[in-house]
Amino acid sequence: MSLLENVRTSAADAFDAGAFSDRLRLAQSAARTLATATTAVKNAALEAIAHDLIEHVDDIVAANAHDLERGRGSGLADGLLDRLALSPRRVHDLADAVLDIVAIADPVGETARGRTLPNGVHLEQVRVPFGVVGAIYEARPNVTADIAALALKSGNAVVLRGGSAAERTNAVLVSVIQGALARTGLPEASVQTIDGFGRAGAAELMRARGYVDLLVPRGSAQLIQTVVTESTVPVIETGAGVVHIVLDESAREDWAVEIVHNAKVQRPSVCNAVETLLVHAAAAERLLPPVLQALRASGVTIHADARATAIFPDSVPATDEDWATEYMSLDLAVRVVDTLDEAIDHIRRYSTHHTESIITNDLGNADRFLAEVDSAVVMVNASTRFTDGGEFGFGAEVGISTQKLHARGPMGLPELTSTKWIVRGSGQIRR
Amino acid sequence: MSLLENVRTSAADAFDAGAFSDRLRLAQSAARTLATATTAVKNAALEAIAHDLIEHVDDIVAANAHDLERGRGSGLADGLLDRLALSPRRVHDLADAVLDIVAIADPVGETARGRTLPNGVHLEQVRVPFGVVGAIYEARPNVTADIAALALKSGNAVVLRGGSAAERTNAVLVSVIQGALARTGLPEASVQTIDGFGRAGAAELMRARGYVDLLVPRGSAQLIQTVVTESTVPVIETGAGVVHIVLDESAREDWAVEIVHNAKVQRPSVCNAVETLLVHAAAAERLLPPVLQALRASGVTIHADARATAIFPDSVPATDEDWATEYMSLDLAVRVVDTLDEAIDHIRRYSTHHTESIITNDLGNADRFLAEVDSAVVMVNASTRFTDGGEFGFGAEVGISTQKLHARGPMGLPELTSTKWIVRGSGQIRR
Repeated sequence: MSLLENVRTSAADAFDAGAFSDRLRLAQSAARTLATATTAVKNAALEAIAHDLIEHVDDIVAANAHDLERGRGSGLADGLLDRLALSPRRVHDLADAVLDIVAIADPVGETARGRTLPNGVHLEQVRVPFGVVGAIYEARPNVTADIAALALKSGNAVVLRGGSAAERTNAVLVSVIQGALARTGLPEASVQTIDGFGRAGAAELMRARGYVDLLVPRGSAQLIQTVVTESTVPVIETGAGVVHIVLDESAREDWAVEIVHNAKVQRPSVCNAVETLLVHAAAAERLLPPVLQALRASGVTIHADARATAIFPDSVPATDEDWATEYMSLDLAVRVVDTLDEAIDHIRRYSTHHTESIITNDLGNADRFLAEVDSAVVMVNASTRFTDGGEFGFGAEVGISTQKLHARGPMGLPELTSTKWIVRGSGQIRR
Repeated sequence: MSLLENVRTSAADAFDAGAFSDRLRLAQSAARTLATATTAVKNAALEAIAHDLIEHVDDIVAANAHDLERGRGSGLADGLLDRLALSPRRVHDLADAVLDIVAIADPVGETARGRTLPNGVHLEQVRVPFGVVGAIYEARPNVTADIAALALKSGNAVVLRGGSAAERTNAVLVSVIQGALARTGLPEASVQTIDGFGRAGAAELMRARGYVDLLVPRGSAQLIQTVVTESTVPVIETGAGVVHIVLDESAREDWAVEIVHNAKVQRPSVCNAVETLLVHAAAAERLLPPVLQALRASGVTIHADARATAIFPDSVPATDEDWATEYMSLDLAVRVVDTLDEAIDHIRRYSTHHTESIITNDLGNADRFLAEVDSAVVMVNASTRFTDGGEFGFGAEVGISTQKLHARGPMGLPELTSTKWIVRGSGQIRR
C-alpha cells in the first residue's frame, strides 16, 4: 500500500471537534509514556526514524511532487517552492539531521539546582519534558522531521500543523515517523499532524490550554504575529531578523569586508543574514568602498543614506522603510553614524532583537555594545550567520527565540524542557 | 507635606493614552540604567527603601486606614481586608523582607553556559534582566514592596497595577520607594504604579507588547485567568492550588497526622495548603481516624466520600465539586482509593499542578509518585506548606508559577532574569 492513500486534503472536511480533542488526548497520553522513556529507547526510535525516512524516500518525494505541482498551480513564490521541495538528497539530509540528535545529550533528568535545607528537607530541581509541544509552520517539510526528532529526544509529544502547501509531504513524513515509533514500542501518537483539520484545527491548537504545554510558530512575520496574539497557550516567539552589523572606527578592513559579505551573501533568505550596516563616520571613507564593492560584485543592491551615497555612489537611496525591513534578499541598507551611541540608538529603534554584531578593535566599545544592545545574540568580530542551533552545537534547532521568556536565541533540547522541584523529607512540617 | 497629597483615585479620570505611553517609555529607559547597575548600587537602593519604609510608617498606615475604611464600606470580604491591612508591625516586616533580598546573590551577569567552538568563536550565555516587568494583583500591599525589591535586585524596572482596593496604600508605598531610589541615584521610574489609569490601564498593560517583557498576575483564579487569556505580552501564570496529599499503605501514622494537620491548619488561606486527602484503602482504617480526629479538633470540616464516611462518620458528604475546589478555609476533601494508580489518576484530573505530597515508606511508590505526578513541586514525607520562596531560600517570592514555561514553582531572583548569548570572534565567518 502506498502511504499516499492515507493522505487527505483538508478543504472538503468540516471541523470535527470530537476527533480533534481525541488527538490532543492521545498526545497527552503519549507524552506520559515519553516522559519516563529512557535515553536508550528514545535514541533507538530516532535511529528507526532515520532508517525509515531513507527506506520511504520514493513515497516522500512523490508526495512532495504533488505539493510542488499544486504550489506552482496556485502561484506560490519561488522562495517558498524552494523551501517546500524535497529531493532524494534532501531526504537523506533530513535523516542525517535526525541521527545527529542521537549524539546530543538528553537533558531530561538533569539536576539544575539542589540543596538541603537546615531542617533536613532536600530540594532538587530537575529537568522534565514539557509534555505536549505544538508547532505551527508553513511549507517547510524539514521542520516536520527536525521538530519531531528534537521533541522525542527531549521526551515530548508533538502536534504539528505544517500548513496546506506541504500537506501531502508532511502526511507521509508523519506516517513514516509513526511507523518507526510503533516498531520501537513508543506510542504512534507521540508525533501527530493536525493538517487534516484545516485552519480551524490551527485555531483550536492555539487555544488548547491544559492540553498544549508549549506552542512554537515558525514562518513568516505574519504567521508568528497571529500565533502570538491569538494563542492562550504558552508561546515562544521565533523571530524575524532585522540584523545589524556596526563597523566601528577601529574595525579591521579585512574582517569588515569578509564578515559583512558572509553575513549578507552566503544565504540571504534566512533570519540571521545581515540587513543593515551602520558605519562610524570616522571610518566610512576607509571601509565603505571595499566592503560595498565586494557586495556589489556578488549582486547586492545597496540602499544607502545620503552620507554613504556620497562615498559610494553605486547605490539606491535608503528610505525610513529600509531601516525596518527584513529583505531576505541580496539587499542591504547602509547608514553612516557619528558615534557608537547613535549606532546603538538606531539598533534600539529598528532591531527585532535577533542578532547584532560589531566589528571593532576597541575593547571599551566592544564591551559597551555587548552590554547595551538588547538582542538574543550580540557579537564582536564574527559573522551574524553563526546564530544557529547547528553552529552552536545543539544539533537541529526548534527555532530562534527572539523573546526573553524561557528561551532566547537558538533553541535546542534543553529549551524543550521545563523543570520540576522534587522535595524529599522525613516527616518535616513548617514551623 | 504628607505623601497622601500625591494620591488620586482613578474613578473620575478618563484614560489618558499619551500619559500611559510616557510611563512605559520611562520604565524602558529606567530598565536600561538598571541593567548595567552594579550589585552594590542596587543593594544600596534596597537599604534606602527599607529605611524609608520605616521612616514613613505613619503615612503608610494612614493611607492604609483610608483603604480599609473604603473596603469595609464596600463590603470587602474579611480575608481580603486582612490581606489589605498594614499595621506598623507589618510595615516593619515589609522593610525586613526588602533587607533579606540584599543578602541574596545577584543573578545578573552569571554565566549559564559557555564553550569555544572548533573555529575559535567563544560563546557565553549570561543572565540579563528582563527589562520591564509588569505585575497585576489585588489588595496585597506587601506584594508592592516584595516585587519592587525583587525586580530592582534583578535589574528590572517594574510597572505595578495593585488594584483599587489598595490604591492609596500602594501610592504611598511607591512614592516612598521612588524617594529612596532618587536618593541613591537610580531612576524614580524604576518602580511605578499605574493604578491612576484604572481598569483601562490594566488592559493596556496586558497588550503593551514591545514595552513589557514579562507580566505576572497574582490574586484570585479569576484575575489570573483574565490576565492569561487577554495578554499579548509574555505572562507567567501563578496559580491556584488544589493541593493533594496521598497517604500510602505504608505511611507512618505520626508523619501522616502531623503533616496533614500542618498542611491544612497552619495557614488555610494560602495556595500551598492541602485541599484533598487521598488514602490507600489498605491504610484507611488505620490512618483516617487519627488524622481526621486531629483535624476535627482544630475545627476542620471533613468532606468525605462514602468509604471515608463509613470509617469516620463525623464528616459531610463530598460531591464531585469538592474535588476541584480550592477551599482556602478549614475544609478538607477526603477520598479512599484502591491503588496508587487511582490516586495519581485523581491528581491528574483535579490538580492545578501546584504541589502534591505522598506519605509513604515504600521506595518504589515514592519514586513513581515523584516521576509521574506532573506538578511544579512533588514531595515525599513533607508538608506541602514548604512550597514557598522564603522556605526555599529565595528571599521573598514573585509568585508560585504553575506553568511550565520559563519558571515553575516558587519564583525568586533568577526567575526574573532572561539570558543573552555573547559571541566573541576574531574575524570568523561561516563556511
